[in-house]
Amino acid sequence: MAIEGTTETRAPRIRLGMVGGGSGAFIGAVHRIAARIDDHYDLVAGALSSTPERSRQSGAELGLHPSRVYDDFKSMAIREARLKDGIEAVAIVTPNHMHYPAAIEFLKRGIHVICDKPLTSNLADAKKLVKATESSDALFILTHNYSGYPMVRQAREMVARGDLGDIRLVQMEYPQDWLAEPVERSGSKQAEWRTDPARSGVGGSTGDIGTHAYQLGCFISGLELDELAADVHTFVPGRQLDDNAHVMLRFKGGAKGMLWCSQVASGNENALKVRVYGTKGGLEWEQENPNYLWYTPLGEPKRLLTRGGAGALDVAARVSRTPGGHPEGYLEGFATIYSEAARAIQAKRTGKTVDPAVLYPTVADGLKGVTFVTACINSSKRNGAWVKV
Amino acid sequence: MAIEGTTETRAPRIRLGMVGGGSGAFIGAVHRIAARIDDHYDLVAGALSSTPERSRQSGAELGLHPSRVYDDFKSMAIREARLKDGIEAVAIVTPNHMHYPAAIEFLKRGIHVICDKPLTSNLADAKKLVKATESSDALFILTHNYSGYPMVRQAREMVARGDLGDIRLVQMEYPQDWLAEPVERSGSKQAEWRTDPARSGVGGSTGDIGTHAYQLGCFISGLELDELAADVHTFVPGRQLDDNAHVMLRFKGGAKGMLWCSQVASGNENALKVRVYGTKGGLEWEQENPNYLWYTPLGEPKRLLTRGGAGALDVAARVSRTPGGHPEGYLEGFATIYSEAARAIQAKRTGKTVDPAVLYPTVADGLKGVTFVTACINSSKRNGAWVKV
Amino acid sequence: MAIEGTTETRAPRIRLGMVGGGSGAFIGAVHRIAARIDDHYDLVAGALSSTPERSRQSGAELGLHPSRVYDDFKSMAIREARLKDGIEAVAIVTPNHMHYPAAIEFLKRGIHVICDKPLTSNLADAKKLVKATESSDALFILTHNYSGYPMVRQAREMVARGDLGDIRLVQMEYPQDWLAEPVERSGSKQAEWRTDPARSGVGGSTGDIGTHAYQLGCFISGLELDELAADVHTFVPGRQLDDNAHVMLRFKGGAKGMLWCSQVASGNENALKVRVYGTKGGLEWEQENPNYLWYTPLGEPKRLLTRGGAGALDVAARVSRTPGGHPEGYLEGFATIYSEAARAIQAKRTGKTVDPAVLYPTVADGLKGVTFVTACINSSKRNGAWVKV
Amino acid sequence: MAIEGTTETRAPRIRLGMVGGGSGAFIGAVHRIAARIDDHYDLVAGALSSTPERSRQSGAELGLHPSRVYDDFKSMAIREARLKDGIEAVAIVTPNHMHYPAAIEFLKRGIHVICDKPLTSNLADAKKLVKATESSDALFILTHNYSGYPMVRQAREMVARGDLGDIRLVQMEYPQDWLAEPVERSGSKQAEWRTDPARSGVGGSTGDIGTHAYQLGCFISGLELDELAADVHTFVPGRQLDDNAHVMLRFKGGAKGMLWCSQVASGNENALKVRVYGTKGGLEWEQENPNYLWYTPLGEPKRLLTRGGAGALDVAARVSRTPGGHPEGYLEGFATIYSEAARAIQAKRTGKTVDPAVLYPTVADGLKGVTFVTACINSSKRNGAWVKV
Repeated sequence: MAIEGTTETRAPRIRLGMVGGGSGAFIGAVHRIAARIDDHYDLVAGALSSTPERSRQSGAELGLHPSRVYDDFKSMAIREARLKDGIEAVAIVTPNHMHYPAAIEFLKRGIHVICDKPLTSNLADAKKLVKATESSDALFILTHNYSGYPMVRQAREMVARGDLGDIRLVQMEYPQDWLAEPVERSGSKQAEWRTDPARSGVGGSTGDIGTHAYQLGCFISGLELDELAADVHTFVPGRQLDDNAHVMLRFKGGAKGMLWCSQVASGNENALKVRVYGTKGGLEWEQENPNYLWYTPLGEPKRLLTRGGAGALDVAARVSRTPGGHPEGYLEGFATIYSEAARAIQAKRTGKTVDPAVLYPTVADGLKGVTFVTACINSSKRNGAWVKV
Repeated sequence: MAIEGTTETRAPRIRLGMVGGGSGAFIGAVHRIAARIDDHYDLVAGALSSTPERSRQSGAELGLHPSRVYDDFKSMAIREARLKDGIEAVAIVTPNHMHYPAAIEFLKRGIHVICDKPLTSNLADAKKLVKATESSDALFILTHNYSGYPMVRQAREMVARGDLGDIRLVQMEYPQDWLAEPVERSGSKQAEWRTDPARSGVGGSTGDIGTHAYQLGCFISGLELDELAADVHTFVPGRQLDDNAHVMLRFKGGAKGMLWCSQVASGNENALKVRVYGTKGGLEWEQENPNYLWYTPLGEPKRLLTRGGAGALDVAARVSRTPGGHPEGYLEGFATIYSEAARAIQAKRTGKTVDPAVLYPTVADGLKGVTFVTACINSSKRNGAWVKV
Repeated sequence: MAIEGTTETRAPRIRLGMVGGGSGAFIGAVHRIAARIDDHYDLVAGALSSTPERSRQSGAELGLHPSRVYDDFKSMAIREARLKDGIEAVAIVTPNHMHYPAAIEFLKRGIHVICDKPLTSNLADAKKLVKATESSDALFILTHNYSGYPMVRQAREMVARGDLGDIRLVQMEYPQDWLAEPVERSGSKQAEWRTDPARSGVGGSTGDIGTHAYQLGCFISGLELDELAADVHTFVPGRQLDDNAHVMLRFKGGAKGMLWCSQVASGNENALKVRVYGTKGGLEWEQENPNYLWYTPLGEPKRLLTRGGAGALDVAARVSRTPGGHPEGYLEGFATIYSEAARAIQAKRTGKTVDPAVLYPTVADGLKGVTFVTACINSSKRNGAWVKV
Repeated sequence: MAIEGTTETRAPRIRLGMVGGGSGAFIGAVHRIAARIDDHYDLVAGALSSTPERSRQSGAELGLHPSRVYDDFKSMAIREARLKDGIEAVAIVTPNHMHYPAAIEFLKRGIHVICDKPLTSNLADAKKLVKATESSDALFILTHNYSGYPMVRQAREMVARGDLGDIRLVQMEYPQDWLAEPVERSGSKQAEWRTDPARSGVGGSTGDIGTHAYQLGCFISGLELDELAADVHTFVPGRQLDDNAHVMLRFKGGAKGMLWCSQVASGNENALKVRVYGTKGGLEWEQENPNYLWYTPLGEPKRLLTRGGAGALDVAARVSRTPGGHPEGYLEGFATIYSEAARAIQAKRTGKTVDPAVLYPTVADGLKGVTFVTACINSSKRNGAWVKV
C-alpha cells in the first residue's frame, strides 16, 4: 500500500483554489475531501459561488482568508496569478456550462486545472478547451473519479496485459432513480441545474452519468469507439433533458458493446457497472461494491479479486490506502485522481519527468465524453442511425 | 403451497409420448423430470431419436414397452391415435427444425402438444403452426420454462396490479459463455445443432436464449413490442449463426427496453435477468437465484421478496412446492409448465372450464418469439434499422 | 451429468410404501417428489395418517389402490411383507416419536427403511434402532437431505483429498425465524408437534435443525466430535422445547467449532451454513444458494465454484441433473438421497456390490445426531459444562 | 448529509500530536487520514517511533517542523504542554503495551487523548487509566472505529427506539486469515507485535479483533454483558497468543449471544459481522459492505437499508459525507470518530455543552474491552467455565 507515500509527502503541498462548490453544493465538498485525503493540497483561495455574497460566506465557513475569497473566477485568476504564493492549481466544480469560461482563465495564466465532468456543455467549447490546454503550460485533469478506484485500475491492467485475450464485448450500465419524479420542480438544486439545458448542455443522463460509464468502459477496455446508435428519451413529462438512454456501440477493431444510463430506474442508487469479455476471459466490476473485481479465465472457476487481497496487482496497490477487507470508497477513488494530479503537478514544478505509472483523465478524454453525448443526441434525432465519432 | 395439489392428483395421469430426447440429449431428460415432479403424467411412448436403433435403445433405457417405441414421430402419431389407451399428449424435444413437422402430425390427430422453444426454425413454419393449432381441438403448450418460476409469476402479478405504476423500462439480458470457443467443432452435440442453421433456424443466440429473455420480459411487463433495432453478431470465426446480439426495443404505449443475449461472455453460465421499472417502483429478477425478487417502491427501501416468504403472493404460492428458504430450481419451474398444461388438458378431458389462474406459453407466444428472432436478423442486415414486428 | 443415469433406469422401479405424510403434511409430499424425480420408485402403499379415515382419504388423493392403504403401519408391514409384489422399501415421515416403533416393524420383515430425521425422539430408541438394523437384512437410510446437494458432496471430497490441509475449524449455523412467536398456539400443525416433547423428543431447535447442521459439518469435514459445551434456551414464553442453542465443539484430532441453531432469528428462513477452514484453505457453503461453493486456497483469490461449472468435481456431477447455471434446489438434493438409496437397494436386490461412490446417511449417523442433541441438553443442564459424546 | 458541517468548520482546527505511527506503521497513517477527512485537525507534533532517529525521519516525511518532532512521548507531553500553541490532543497509535504509559503523560497535562484499541495490554493498566481520565480535565476517546459507520449508528438507533422489540440474540463474528501461517516469523512487523504478549497483552485475536466485535455488538444492541464462557485457542504452532476464540455470552436481561474471532480462517479478510435479533425483528450488518444494513421486521419482507437511501435515519445522515450509492468506507468511519472527538474537544474549548448527538467510545468502553479479553482467557483456562464480568 502507498499510504501517504512517504517521500512524496515531503514535497510542499500544492496551493489550490476552487471555483464553485459553495455551501450546499454536493460535488465541491467531495473535491475538498478528495484533495485532503492524501495531503497533497492546501485550499487557499476560492470563487465559491456565482453570488459574491454567498462566495464570501462559504469562504468564511471553509476558513479561507477573506483576501483570498473572490467574487468571480476571473478576478481570482488574475490576482492569484500575480501573487507570489498564489494558487498553483484550481478545482472547477461549477455546473457544466461554466467549465469552459472558467478553465481558460486559469489555463492561460499557467494555473493547472482540475475540472469536474463532463468537460463542457457543448462540443464547440470542448474543442476550444483542448486547444487552450495545448497552448498552455498548465495541466488539465478531468475528474472522472471512477477511474481512480484500485480495482478499476486493476481491470485496465489485466486487459492491457492480455489476461482477457482479444476484447469482444464491453457492457456498460449506469442506472439511478433519483430523477424518477420531477424533483427539479420541487426544490432539488442538484436536479434543477442537471435538467436545465442552459447549465448542463445537450445531454441530461447522457452527460451526467452516461459519460462516466462510457469513459470507464474505454478506460478499462483500452478500446476506441468507432460508431454508436442511440435511443435517448425523456420519461418524466416536462423535463427538458434526457433521463434515459439506450446505446449500441461498435469499437474500432471489432468489439461491440451496449450502454444504458438512466435516472428513472427505481431501486438503483448509483449502480455503475462495467463488464468486459474477451476471447480468454471476462471481468465484472460494480461501483457500489468497488473493492471487488470478478474475474473468470475462460474454462476456469470465477475468482473474486479483492483490493488488497492475494490477486491484487501493483497498479491497484499503488493507489490503495488500507489493507484488504478495510473497504475504500467513493472518496478514496476521487482522492486518487487528486493525488495523481499532484504527482504530475509536483513533477512539473521541479521539471522532473512524471512517473509513467501516474494516470488521470485529461482534456482529451473530456472531448471524447462530449463527443459521445453529442453523438447519442444526434443518433437519436435520426431515429437511432449509426453515428461515427 | 400447492404441493401435489391434493384433489388434482385424483385425476388419472396423462398418457404422454415423447419425440426426441434419446440418450445423451439434455433437454429430453429435463422434460421427463419436469413431467414427473408433480405426478400428472405417465410417459408411455416415444420416438426418441431420428435413428430407429437409438430410439429403441433409449426406449429400453427408459423402461418403455417395446411396442410403444417408434422409429419415427409419424408412425407414433398414427398408431397412438388409434390405440384405446394411446397417448393424450406429446412432448416434442427435438432440434428446432423438427418442431413443426412433428407438431402437426399430433395436432391433426387431436393429441396435445408440449413443445420446446423456439417454436420453429423459421417464421413461415411458425405461422403455419398457429393455424394448425387453431384448426385442432388439441392444446399447444410451449415450454418457455422460465415463466414457470414462482417469483416470475409474482413479478408479472405485481406489474399487472399496478405496483410499479406505468412501465417505462424493460431491461433483459441473457449472457452465457459456453460457446466462447468453437466447441461445435470439437464434439459437443448440444453446440453442433445449436450453431447449425439447418437445424436451429435463422437465429443462434437470438433463437436459443434471446427468445427466452424476450418472452420473459413481455410475460412480466405485460407489454407488446412495437419495433426493435438490433446489432447481431458472430464472434467465433467460422460459426454460422449469431452468438451475440444487442437489441434496443420500443414497446407499444411508450416503454423502452434493451436486450442483450450472448453465448461468449466468459464467466456467465445462464445469467438470464429481467429488470422492469415503472413510475412507482422497480423489480429485478435473476434466473440463477430464482427464489428471490427485488422490489423497490419508489422512495422506499429495497425489499427482498422470497418465494414462500412474507411478501409472496398467491400466484407464487400456487406454483410452489416447498416453504421459503428451501430453494426450488430450474426443474421445478419447468415442472410448473407441465403441471399447468396438465390442468388444462385434464379440464379439456372432462369438458370443464380451465381454472383462470392456469397460465402457460402458447403457440401465439411462440410466433412472437420467432417474429422477434426474424426481426433481429432483419434489422441487423439493414445495419440496425428499426423493424416493426 | 448423470441425468436419469441411463442404464440404471432399466432396473424395475422399487415398490415403496409410506408411513405418515397424509394431506397437509409438509415433509411427506417432499419425500414423494424426491422419490419421483429420478424415477427409481413407485409409491404403491401407505399408512398415511394416525387416523384411519384420513389415511384412506389421503391414499385416494394420491391415487393408491384402496387395498394398499392401511389404518396403521403395523398392519401395513405385516400384509405387505406377505404380498408377492409387496413394498420393498418404506418411507417413514411421521413426527419423531413414531420413527422407532414404525421402523422396527419393517426392519424385522426385511423391508428397507428410508426415515426422516432426527432418527428418534430419544437416545434409548436410537440405540435400539441401531441394533435392529444390525440384525436386519434391510438397509436403513436417514434423510439428512442436505448431504445430497452436489456442492456439499464436492466440499466433502475437497476436504478428503486434502485441498484444505488439516482442518482447524468447522463453523455451523442454522437460523430460522418461523417460531419467533408462539405459532404453535395459533394453529400451525408443523409448529405444534415440533414444540411438543411427546412427539419431538428432548430437543426442539437442536433436534429439528441442529442435527442437520451437525450432520452436515461432520459430513463435509470428515471429523468426529469429541465433546461439546452448550447453552440451550427457550426464548418464547410457554414453549416446552428449546428454540435456540449456542454450542462450542471440540473434534477428535484438535479441530474446533461452533454451532448455532435458532428458530427465532427474524429474517432467516432456512439459513443453514457450513464453513470449514484448514491449514491450506477454506470452504463456505449456504443452503439457500446451494449451487455455489466458495473456496479459498490460502494466499490465493477466492473462487466461486458452481455446480456444473469449471471447478465441479465428479462427485458433484454424479448427483447433478442440469448444467451449470440451471439451479438445482432442495428437492433435487433430497432426490439424491432417494436415488442413492435406490442404488443400494437395487444392488441388494440382485446381490451385487454397491458402487462405492454411493453415499447416504445411515442409522449410525442418526445415532450420532440423537447423541448430539442429548449432549447439548445435558451440557446445558450442567450450565454449559463440556460433555463427551 | 453533513458534508464538512458548514458552521462547524469555522472553529479553528485542533492542534494534534501523534505518538507512534512512523513510516511503515499501518494504523498511524489511517489515523492521520481520518483526522484530515473532515478537516478538524492539524497534525503539528509527533513522537513517531520508539527509535529517535526513525521518529525524526518520519516527522520529516510528514512535513512536521523539526522542533515539534520528539524522541519520546514524555518529552513531547512536557514541552507541548508548555507551548502557547502546543497540541490540544494527541493520537496514540503504538502497540498496546504503550497506550497506558503514553496516555497518562498527556492526560495529566490536560491534553485530550485519542487512543487506539484495545485500551491497554492488561486489566490493571486499564483500571488505572480509567482513574487517570476521571482525574483529568481532558477527554479520552478510544478509536473503536467501526462504531463510526453510519449504518452501525442506524442499527443502534433502531434497537434503541424499539424497532426490534426486546433483544434476544447478538451474534458477533470477526474472522480474518492473515495469521493462518506463522508470518510473525517471516518479517511481518504487524504480525510480530500482535503475536507478542509483551506488546499485545494477554489476548491475541481476542484483543486485536475480538474486542472490536464485542464493542460493536454492545454498541448496537445497547446490552451489557453478564457472563461468558470461552474456548480460546492457538492453532499456529509456536505462536504465543491466541489466534481463534469461540465465546458464548449471556447479557444482563436475558439476551444471549455468540462471538467468534479468528485470524486463521482462510478466505476471510476482515469479515466483521454483527446480527441482532429481537422479539419484533432482526438486523444484520457486515463491515466489508458497510453501506448496507439488512432489516427484517418480523413477518414482513427483508429490507436493504442503504446509507443515504430512503430508509436512512438522521443518525446515519449526520455522519455521512456522500449520497446513497457513493460508498463510504473504512477511512470515513474512522474519520467520524475523529470528528465526533473534535466536536467534543471544541465544545470543551469554548466551555459549551457537547451536542448530545455526539457519540464516541470512551475509556469506560476500553475497560469493558480489556475486561472481555481477560474474561475470555480466564474462562478458557478454566476449561470454558462461565466467568462474570
